[in-house]
Amino acid sequence: MAYIDLGNDIPGIRGLLAYRPETARPLGEFIDVLLRGGNSLSRGERELIAAYVSRLNECVYCTNSHSATAAAQLAGGTAQVEQTLADLGTAPVSDKLRALLGIAGLVQVSGRMVTADAIANARAAGASDVEIHDTVLIAAAFCMFNRYVDGLGAPVPDDPAAYVAGAEMLVKHGYRVP
Amino acid sequence: MAYIDLGNDIPGIRGLLAYRPETARPLGEFIDVLLRGGNSLSRGERELIAAYVSRLNECVYCTNSHSATAAAQLAGGTAQVEQTLADLGTAPVSDKLRALLGIAGLVQVSGRMVTADAIANARAAGASDVEIHDTVLIAAAFCMFNRYVDGLGAPVPDDPAAYVAGAEMLVKHGYRVP
Repeated sequence: MAYIDLGNDIPGIRGLLAYRPETARPLGEFIDVLLRGGNSLSRGERELIAAYVSRLNECVYCTNSHSATAAAQLAGGTAQVEQTLADLGTAPVSDKLRALLGIAGLVQVSGRMVTADAIANARAAGASDVEIHDTVLIAAAFCMFNRYVDGLGAPVPDDPAAYVAGAEMLVKHGYRVP
Repeated sequence: MAYIDLGNDIPGIRGLLAYRPETARPLGEFIDVLLRGGNSLSRGERELIAAYVSRLNECVYCTNSHSATAAAQLAGGTAQVEQTLADLGTAPVSDKLRALLGIAGLVQVSGRMVTADAIANARAAGASDVEIHDTVLIAAAFCMFNRYVDGLGAPVPDDPAAYVAGAEMLVKHGYRVP
């Protein structure tokens, strides 16, 4: 049960979005552009950044949801996602993505934690300015979404199959609110 | 100088938005609806929540910007904003707004910090479910915007007059990207 009466029993963020369509519409468009729009970072890589930040914020719903969506779109599947969330240092990802995930981890603590050195490190590993921009914005956005979900006590499904099914829908249809 | 080459010298978040119009458009619409759309919390009260969270995140640009925008729309002006940001316990605000700002402060730390007691406390002070929802989302949103601005090292104007002028524009025209 959420902390407020949502008038629906849809779990996770979707129940909150249904409760407040005024903000749901632009939020859906925003995250669809950011995670699925044209970008040299693949959709799977961007979902992995979202899952990584959600894990750092200990948001169970968002971690499960974006881990499943990342796994569905990465060649390494669930094992690659789980290894990355467990230990970035030994994660089976490119040096560029490791550096970008490092920046995302700094953003999760505070925007003020990011340093010119961390940016230079990502650039040296091949990251472009747009990739750095989008990584910071994805990490920042999940510091919002994680707080939105947990701050209102949105109900969290226990069944892993629910997240796999949700990921299939997201991969196929995206995040825009119809 | 921002950490990436924005191709413009516009300070604060506006330079980032100009750099990446794809995400700027839905972000502008989102924050315009949230801070200025129909709501029983006044625009000044919502800006005060934004300023309060930005101060907790130590984001100088957002604190100055939303403090000026709150002051321009609250009867108590700058003094009311400064007293609220300095000490919530003695802030010259209603009991309801004090309770909502308390929830915003919990969200700033983590969504997981919010408790049923904090929600019950706001409700006892007269807060509606929509007001609680929007407070959580405003606080969460500024945990994003603050990280976006500081995580990319956006340049911060020193001149207080710049924020007053910016607030005049925001009060008149809102946040939507043209």
